[in-house]
Amino acid sequence: MEQIKIVIAGPRGRMGQEAVKLVNETEHFTLSAVLDKINDGEWFQDQVRTYTNPEQCFAETSPDVLIDLTTPEVGKIHTKLALEHGVRPVVGTTGFQEEDLQELRKLAEEKGIGAIIAPNFAIGAVLMMKFAKMAARYFPDVEIIEMHHDKKLDAPSGTGIKTAEMIYEVRGNKKQGHPEEKETIKGARGGEWNGIHIHSVRLPGLVAHQEVLFGGDGQTLKIRHDSYNRASFMSGVKLSVETVMKIDTLVYGLENIIE
Amino acid sequence: MEQIKIVIAGPRGRMGQEAVKLVNETEHFTLSAVLDKINDGEWFQDQVRTYTNPEQCFAETSPDVLIDLTTPEVGKIHTKLALEHGVRPVVGTTGFQEEDLQELRKLAEEKGIGAIIAPNFAIGAVLMMKFAKMAARYFPDVEIIEMHHDKKLDAPSGTGIKTAEMIYEVRGNKKQGHPEEKETIKGARGGEWNGIHIHSVRLPGLVAHQEVLFGGDGQTLKIRHDSYNRASFMSGVKLSVETVMKIDTLVYGLENIIE
Amino acid sequence: MEQIKIVIAGPRGRMGQEAVKLVNETEHFTLSAVLDKINDGEWFQDQVRTYTNPEQCFAETSPDVLIDLTTPEVGKIHTKLALEHGVRPVVGTTGFQEEDLQELRKLAEEKGIGAIIAPNFAIGAVLMMKFAKMAARYFPDVEIIEMHHDKKLDAPSGTGIKTAEMIYEVRGNKKQGHPEEKETIKGARGGEWNGIHIHSVRLPGLVAHQEVLFGGDGQTLKIRHDSYNRASFMSGVKLSVETVMKIDTLVYGLENIIE
Amino acid sequence: MEQIKIVIAGPRGRMGQEAVKLVNETEHFTLSAVLDKINDGEWFQDQVRTYTNPEQCFAETSPDVLIDLTTPEVGKIHTKLALEHGVRPVVGTTGFQEEDLQELRKLAEEKGIGAIIAPNFAIGAVLMMKFAKMAARYFPDVEIIEMHHDKKLDAPSGTGIKTAEMIYEVRGNKKQGHPEEKETIKGARGGEWNGIHIHSVRLPGLVAHQEVLFGGDGQTLKIRHDSYNRASFMSGVKLSVETVMKIDTLVYGLENIIE
Repeated sequence: MEQIKIVIAGPRGRMGQEAVKLVNETEHFTLSAVLDKINDGEWFQDQVRTYTNPEQCFAETSPDVLIDLTTPEVGKIHTKLALEHGVRPVVGTTGFQEEDLQELRKLAEEKGIGAIIAPNFAIGAVLMMKFAKMAARYFPDVEIIEMHHDKKLDAPSGTGIKTAEMIYEVRGNKKQGHPEEKETIKGARGGEWNGIHIHSVRLPGLVAHQEVLFGGDGQTLKIRHDSYNRASFMSGVKLSVETVMKIDTLVYGLENIIE
Repeated sequence: MEQIKIVIAGPRGRMGQEAVKLVNETEHFTLSAVLDKINDGEWFQDQVRTYTNPEQCFAETSPDVLIDLTTPEVGKIHTKLALEHGVRPVVGTTGFQEEDLQELRKLAEEKGIGAIIAPNFAIGAVLMMKFAKMAARYFPDVEIIEMHHDKKLDAPSGTGIKTAEMIYEVRGNKKQGHPEEKETIKGARGGEWNGIHIHSVRLPGLVAHQEVLFGGDGQTLKIRHDSYNRASFMSGVKLSVETVMKIDTLVYGLENIIE
Repeated sequence: MEQIKIVIAGPRGRMGQEAVKLVNETEHFTLSAVLDKINDGEWFQDQVRTYTNPEQCFAETSPDVLIDLTTPEVGKIHTKLALEHGVRPVVGTTGFQEEDLQELRKLAEEKGIGAIIAPNFAIGAVLMMKFAKMAARYFPDVEIIEMHHDKKLDAPSGTGIKTAEMIYEVRGNKKQGHPEEKETIKGARGGEWNGIHIHSVRLPGLVAHQEVLFGGDGQTLKIRHDSYNRASFMSGVKLSVETVMKIDTLVYGLENIIE
Repeated sequence: MEQIKIVIAGPRGRMGQEAVKLVNETEHFTLSAVLDKINDGEWFQDQVRTYTNPEQCFAETSPDVLIDLTTPEVGKIHTKLALEHGVRPVVGTTGFQEEDLQELRKLAEEKGIGAIIAPNFAIGAVLMMKFAKMAARYFPDVEIIEMHHDKKLDAPSGTGIKTAEMIYEVRGNKKQGHPEEKETIKGARGGEWNGIHIHSVRLPGLVAHQEVLFGGDGQTLKIRHDSYNRASFMSGVKLSVETVMKIDTLVYGLENIIE
């Protein structure tokens, strides 16, 4: 396979470290340089040069792909500069607005190169959501149970809400359960969003898990994703790097590059 | 094994029919008669005589055990009369008050015979609750997820609440989850009873299922019971009949005859 | 919605009875007649006439759709005759050979009408297999655990094998697990088919269940189908009847009408 | 609560490091010293002195408890010396023979102090096994499904076999499944040990998981343990330290101190 030359932005962050590991462990990936806020000109892990100026980095190292795992603000700037320099961006930060995406999409098409922006790189989670959306066409009755460690502040989780949104696109609003059902303990039936019930479990020991449970006459269908650690994101990054080389437009969301 | 002679009260009800089947299929059980509201003196399934008068029934057929699957009101009367006639009662109706139990316990001890009264005969469900109570000593963080068909009116289920009560006996009240956790969709964290979160899922296709999930450092422990149909109650009835022959006091709740 | 006029073949069988119930409970479905081996000319459930001659049945009642739930042999004859009379067949019997299908496909196209032949009408099971095939592209490591009541003779189940075949189409053969793994108890690693491990659990109480478990770096994805009773097949029959009215070719397998 | 003074043997190992963390994070635990093969007299983590001679260590620091997480050989020697010096041992190494245990039990009783030796400190796993043994009395039909990462060499896992042994103590041998069941793919029904079927799943992403599934008329009961990381052992070490202070005999196996 042809080598893909890669620059990683944010190489010291938790996700960035995993990405460096991924690139080093993948035969047809080559690390060209890293982009960081500090350490300009220094060696990163005795391996490649650190740049703080993205334009200089792209100009001097001519990478094929930028993997950006920084913040939303920095990510936007990097993405635009990468496209302008003909470097295909794979971006894992959220926070892009529709107008940002439109501008970047136009730029990618002008340059005739691909770009992938994904709020979630865990392929398993993305498949779970995609399958849930597909199943909802045939099983309109569905509940979501997401389970996380007890250090988590918000309930439901972002993935839980996103799953409900994707199901809603297919089945719309629907009143589930017994029309006169009543809670003898308030909240027992979970949170409700357009008729979709979401239950959030929080316990020590748990990491990040979600079940989507569909029910129909005489049968149930369950789709469950378990995420045990950050390594779960790297297969999505790898797939994105390989895919971004073959497309000539901007894609938002891993679900749109998965067949 | 020695034959146990049995009278069944309520033989035409749904549970009663299952009990008749159980007695006929168990080698060391013999059906002596049935007790019913109607059909006095007629043959039941070409097999045994139907009585409407319990005292006459006990006097004429001298059974070892009465299996009572009638209503709470009738069940109380039958239980008392059975004990007075030296017949050991196995009663599946709920609704006995503490004072009823005390009176019946005294009577059982005077007569020196056993009696078993159980609100739930599904051994699997009873074991689940017993194990949950045992585990709570070592894993105070726990959530209950109960799942039923969408024709069910109340949430949470009776078993869900009973499980929480049994856990509470061991671990008391406890605030779980992040101290500042917040629900972005109201109810997402489920119903809360003394700090135990209970989640009620309702979907077509489901029958009656419950998970009790415990979390501790780096591990989780799950106990799950699935009930698919009424046959699930009969192993508990069988165990109770065999046990009631060996004891000389009244026992309330199947969990107290399970070792 | 426009009424769809339906003939059911095999109305007294277990699946047939469910189909009659389905047609009667669906507003835009009308039962026109039933096809049976016996009772020619008699009323079926005081509702429609029973025919034993399919050609006479189709000629006299001009149905839109034939639901055939008979045997493979009879099903083939019915399917062909239905197509010749312009009746769209929905057939739930297995045992069609590739040459049968080719002949029927040609006939359907000549007549310009749809036909659906499906070995499995449980939509949930079909979705499970479809999703498993899709996931295998991204998660080549997979094991299948199928669970059935202990009256089942064969292991693995037909659905288990069919799932493995569909996964194999995508990922091919692959040696999973530790290259030097060893079984200290023979059979512990399950049955292996082209590198896909299949585990068959048999227990009283179980009905028909299957899990497909995928594993990748730091994550797992599970797809599980639970079938509790025959009602689970009816949503697939309903979908097929509605779909067969809109297509003009023969489709084999429910997975091919599901989007 | 009264302070418990503790010496940890093997403080640089993976389990030892977790134990040091546990002692430091537990208010009523105090680290008195560490026992190691090297670094005699040096400071361990700027906190306590390192000893290489256990007798000197016990004599100079007079600890209440020794937590030994070394090897079987060293563990045996440490355990004996600890008891002789009146120090209560909590030992996590396996490999003790019955004669070793008898000698140590006698020594513990002579000294009138407690000792706990446990091959598995994960309380969740120990509870799973204990519950499985209890449930087997009422549900003799059972299968074990254990799931581990694909780097594991042996199948079934040690916990899987130990669980089968504990179930066997209660229910004995039993032929499960259809008397004439046949495997169309060899091994599909799993490994069989005295009639108990054990299925071993191996996939990347998995850590260490086990399900024990019981089936009876119309119901199933499942007990599942998930171990995500080594922290799961520490609650068992903590419980053992607290318990060893209150007993005056040797206990083998965590299941025997769990009520």
